[in-house]
Amino acid sequence: MHLARIIGSVVATDKDERLTGVKLLVIQPIRSNGEDKGSPLVAVDTIGAGYGETVFYARSKEGAMPLEIPDVPVDAGVIGIVDSIHVPQASKERTA
Amino acid sequence: MHLARIIGSVVATDKDERLTGVKLLVIQPIRSNGEDKGSPLVAVDTIGAGYGETVFYARSKEGAMPLEIPDVPVDAGVIGIVDSIHVPQASKERTA
Amino acid sequence: MHLARIIGSVVATDKDERLTGVKLLVIQPIRSNGEDKGSPLVAVDTIGAGYGETVFYARSKEGAMPLEIPDVPVDAGVIGIVDSIHVPQASKERTA
Amino acid sequence: MHLARIIGSVVATDKDERLTGVKLLVIQPIRSNGEDKGSPLVAVDTIGAGYGETVFYARSKEGAMPLEIPDVPVDAGVIGIVDSIHVPQASKERTA
Amino acid sequence: MHLARIIGSVVATDKDERLTGVKLLVIQPIRSNGEDKGSPLVAVDTIGAGYGETVFYARSKEGAMPLEIPDVPVDAGVIGIVDSIHVPQASKERTA
Repeated sequence: MHLARIIGSVVATDKDERLTGVKLLVIQPIRSNGEDKGSPLVAVDTIGAGYGETVFYARSKEGAMPLEIPDVPVDAGVIGIVDSIHVPQASKERTA
Repeated sequence: MHLARIIGSVVATDKDERLTGVKLLVIQPIRSNGEDKGSPLVAVDTIGAGYGETVFYARSKEGAMPLEIPDVPVDAGVIGIVDSIHVPQASKERTA
Repeated sequence: MHLARIIGSVVATDKDERLTGVKLLVIQPIRSNGEDKGSPLVAVDTIGAGYGETVFYARSKEGAMPLEIPDVPVDAGVIGIVDSIHVPQASKERTA
Repeated sequence: MHLARIIGSVVATDKDERLTGVKLLVIQPIRSNGEDKGSPLVAVDTIGAGYGETVFYARSKEGAMPLEIPDVPVDAGVIGIVDSIHVPQASKERTA
Repeated sequence: MHLARIIGSVVATDKDERLTGVKLLVIQPIRSNGEDKGSPLVAVDTIGAGYGETVFYARSKEGAMPLEIPDVPVDAGVIGIVDSIHVPQASKERTA
């Protein structure tokens, strides 16, 4: 799974009917030290995450499993809200 | 899922028979601020999206699920047309 | 799916038995303007594509579905031959 | 599969219920010579791996198969602890 | 699929039980002209490939299908040994 911060949302009226009522979040992937990493993507919300929260998400249909919607066309889903990240100093993340 | 803009189409006569009648779009992935990101790819249209529209698409067979064609050899599909993207200023996307 | 040009083939005698009789192509991914993009890969031929032709391929087992071989260990397959690509000028692909 | 070193953990109270009791590790992908490669990610522990150990992990739902939890929304899992890596000199890894 | 050269092996005692007796290879992805491409990864051997041989491998669980082990947590497998690669000069691979 990957860490991300919720930075926005997408409104889409014309979409696959299985996505009706599903919240679409814009999430910014981050490193374990909180820095941005790469570009934002769109993920479904499966846990009730809110703006600004740090979350972890899964890719592929694995990310949509909590929705329990058969054959839902989803390839990324927020599956948990992060309380804290523990990375002892000796192993601190390279930012290169 | 990922944001993209529809920039063209592909015509292919010789193809897997399960793709007969399926529209093949050339889509340009974009950032949430509308800038291009990486190279265009080919995706199936599942929603009736038109030239120039901003859409979101799913990768892998998830993107083809709205087609409801068993075992269709598809790894990217446009699944919704974007009305608007909300990304409050504090979190605006890095372009690096 | 992704665009590519067929640039060669691979001969392999010792291989999984499900691949017996399956043609292995070396394909060069290309942009919609025909330029090379990244490195060649090996894909199965499912459509009878020939040397030098422009094709589109799917990744993962989706690319092998036209073979209709259960549990075939394939993660890329050529699924259609491209007649033409239409990308109107206003949206022409960035080469950066 | 990919080599990694365990560098930390993630605490998350609000998460998909299928993840209850599952340990979430922060892992740093490494090269076969032990150097860091890319950014850390979050993976489930399926084998009882501890801080600082070198492990290998699988991506996608394959990584979660040892958990034997149906439809668990996981896309990376630590599946083995590495005793030793043998890479004879002639083939030593490029660090570029 | 992707071309690679076998450069080593991994020994792991503590691992998912479905991997008992499965050989773990360190493979270096290569271009069709034999040059290294990117970093080595760990793949299961399904074909009896030996040190220094040029092979092709598949990603995701497709790569493990020849093992015929239900739910084996594997995301890359060597599935064939390459006898020869034919890439006519006109299309020779860019090394950029």
